[in-house]
Amino acid sequence: MAAAESRKLAELDDEECFALLAPGGVGRVAFTDFVGPAVVPVNFVLDGRVLVFRTALGGWLDQSLTTSIAGADVRIAFEVDDFDPATRTGWSVLARGGAHHVPAAEAGDLRVDSWAGDDRQSYIRLTPREISGRRVRA
Amino acid sequence: MAAAESRKLAELDDEECFALLAPGGVGRVAFTDFVGPAVVPVNFVLDGRVLVFRTALGGWLDQSLTTSIAGADVRIAFEVDDFDPATRTGWSVLARGGAHHVPAAEAGDLRVDSWAGDDRQSYIRLTPREISGRRVRA
Repeated sequence: MAAAESRKLAELDDEECFALLAPGGVGRVAFTDFVGPAVVPVNFVLDGRVLVFRTALGGWLDQSLTTSIAGADVRIAFEVDDFDPATRTGWSVLARGGAHHVPAAEAGDLRVDSWAGDDRQSYIRLTPREISGRRVRA
Repeated sequence: MAAAESRKLAELDDEECFALLAPGGVGRVAFTDFVGPAVVPVNFVLDGRVLVFRTALGGWLDQSLTTSIAGADVRIAFEVDDFDPATRTGWSVLARGGAHHVPAAEAGDLRVDSWAGDDRQSYIRLTPREISGRRVRA
């Protein structure tokens, strides 16, 4: 890594990554449908070390995750960041792993907000198999 | 679409989507590497109707795009959004299409900022094949 880059970028360890995810908020989930990669914003919460978000049951994201499941993991990526254009500082965290539906009996205890409508009745969870993060300084 | 949802979500047309992308800023590019989907934040500019961003030459994103090119399109997705937690309003735009390197001779005219370091010498462009957007109201 070049000196110019090491001055600006710092890798975060797992603990720092989960600490940044802990407040929840808006993240972006990347998945693959029949034409290629896609990415959409969702509200999420962190439940222990598991990311949980809601999507519309039978909708695009839900279907893309469900169609190819058949018992196997469907890989997704989840990205959360916060940047300040004024100071050119910020951070980003990327979590990757298998997506799974949360059983209805467990979903009730998770207070996952959805701005886009209360019809988002499919709860998806991601237990990160890999997590990485970076902090950027001016 | 349920009435509850139509009150909260409005689809944006192509013109509205490009207008929201016009100022540039931070977006998230989703791509696929050998284990599945990934998504990372990048600075971008809109050049006409083409999205342009920078990444590290030979880095993870650059390699994932380059490795599988061999003349064919590598599909990526690009997402830009702006949400206000206080009012629970905001918008998001998703552009999808093939990723291509910008020839060095053309890259000089594009002022694409990179916060993460000046070693981001690979310029990637995305001419959206599909673009869609949504606005959410409280």
